[in-house]
Amino acid sequence: MNSMTVMKLLPFIEAIGIIAFCISGFIRARQRQFDAVGVFVVGFATAFGGGTLRDILLDRRPFFWVEHQNYVIALFVCSLVAGKAIDFMHRVFTRRGMVIADALGLGIFTITSTAVALEAGMPYFVAAMFGVIGAAFGGVIRDVLCGDTPMLLSDSSPYASCAFAGAWVFIGLQFFGLNDLLCLGLASALIVLLRLLGVRFKLAVPKSF
Amino acid sequence: MNSMTVMKLLPFIEAIGIIAFCISGFIRARQRQFDAVGVFVVGFATAFGGGTLRDILLDRRPFFWVEHQNYVIALFVCSLVAGKAIDFMHRVFTRRGMVIADALGLGIFTITSTAVALEAGMPYFVAAMFGVIGAAFGGVIRDVLCGDTPMLLSDSSPYASCAFAGAWVFIGLQFFGLNDLLCLGLASALIVLLRLLGVRFKLAVPKSF
Amino acid sequence: MNSMTVMKLLPFIEAIGIIAFCISGFIRARQRQFDAVGVFVVGFATAFGGGTLRDILLDRRPFFWVEHQNYVIALFVCSLVAGKAIDFMHRVFTRRGMVIADALGLGIFTITSTAVALEAGMPYFVAAMFGVIGAAFGGVIRDVLCGDTPMLLSDSSPYASCAFAGAWVFIGLQFFGLNDLLCLGLASALIVLLRLLGVRFKLAVPKSF
Repeated sequence: MNSMTVMKLLPFIEAIGIIAFCISGFIRARQRQFDAVGVFVVGFATAFGGGTLRDILLDRRPFFWVEHQNYVIALFVCSLVAGKAIDFMHRVFTRRGMVIADALGLGIFTITSTAVALEAGMPYFVAAMFGVIGAAFGGVIRDVLCGDTPMLLSDSSPYASCAFAGAWVFIGLQFFGLNDLLCLGLASALIVLLRLLGVRFKLAVPKSF
Repeated sequence: MNSMTVMKLLPFIEAIGIIAFCISGFIRARQRQFDAVGVFVVGFATAFGGGTLRDILLDRRPFFWVEHQNYVIALFVCSLVAGKAIDFMHRVFTRRGMVIADALGLGIFTITSTAVALEAGMPYFVAAMFGVIGAAFGGVIRDVLCGDTPMLLSDSSPYASCAFAGAWVFIGLQFFGLNDLLCLGLASALIVLLRLLGVRFKLAVPKSF
Repeated sequence: MNSMTVMKLLPFIEAIGIIAFCISGFIRARQRQFDAVGVFVVGFATAFGGGTLRDILLDRRPFFWVEHQNYVIALFVCSLVAGKAIDFMHRVFTRRGMVIADALGLGIFTITSTAVALEAGMPYFVAAMFGVIGAAFGGVIRDVLCGDTPMLLSDSSPYASCAFAGAWVFIGLQFFGLNDLLCLGLASALIVLLRLLGVRFKLAVPKSF
């Protein structure tokens, strides 16, 4: 397993997910009529919260946002000047656009977080959990900060379950020695697909039996 | 002080507390109509949240649930298939059964967490606080995740105060050189007793003078 | 830059901020009718929560409240016996007194946290963010624990923005080689002034453009 390749590509790949999640935080903060400070804090927490929680639990430093300060500065500038743009995007892309961007973020972050956890020596089941934590807990922090019950818990549309399934596929593909980037691509794509199918066909995770 | 004995026994003793707390998380998530994902997350947070927060604050790794992955897998399977069983237990045991299981968890986790904090070189008062954090803050995380005001704060039935008193008794007994297991047993039993008496006689922690 | 001087003085200077924030936590907990345990937990979280989050993110130990156990014991005693005193202070000082105490805490903690982050090798922008985290996130934890939407997000009166501006002034003054204590004093005073002017003239941080 040459997981170094994935490690080196992580920063670039994560950028796509960060932007998708950040927009979802921005939109929420705008809906709640927060000022520019609130928009930045909620955007930051949504984009970096999951990865930061993952890294705290893994005792891993420096954080992505410390090493790549430019992302934070870009996010900061957007939170100051992008209010109208956010509202515009929110109207234009509507729910469908947001769901797709969010699904992309979910797919990417799940696999990169799983890879990071495996790299840190976590056992398989825990590594798959870390995939979900890194991808889906930015949204949990966003919801707790906004005083809402986390959608991860209250909304039974498949979300964490897609991430969890994809994380196991990634672990399996790696186990059989596939090329790292291929594993990452396939497993991420599967998560995006599962998520979009779940939304399209209004599937619901069953309450436990 | 031969606290190594307690350290070695910790994993076994903590299992009892974990099950008790986990059930309390499961029941809450079922009441809130969460799906299987929500049941797992809330159960996990209730069972392992306090100990994880304690270990983050003490900068202690690996977490219990990383070292003992099997507990997490068991919890995961239960969250998938135990829905009916949880509802059944909730109806059969009613409030009384839950209070007893929870009191057991409180007693055990408080003392093990206090022992861990002493081992990490914390001063006495802080160690007693860590006892309360390890035992009672899983419930706080459960409540915050569910969007409720933490019972630890809003419910004046003695809970953290029983834990805190028992932690000091444990510290005192250790100070006088008693056998570790005896200290653990006596102090845990005292916490369970205080808690059950508090519930039985509807005692309330006074608002401060 | 001889930032060792600031480091040595930190404990003394932080004490003033701790007391101010602690009182704000106490008052909130009393308003919510919490018992003595709740008063202690909310007071502790408000006073030490921001600095603790900062230190977890920076992977910095021991925490202030572990090294200076006496503050925690004093806070504990106050939470037991100071109920009437808190209510009295709340009536006498009214909103104005609280705003001044809180502004002092904001000014002091922002600059000490920024100094700590610079010391830990954080880049400038991130260090300024750490200033805001250390100063303002105790209040966020207080609000989340009490089940309220954080004032930092919902209230557009300038708070985090004053802290952020002051942090940059501190970084600038240090950059030009000014004496550490002078930097600390000037930048803290600026934050206090900005905050009080903001409250006095009912300024509001604009929603982003």
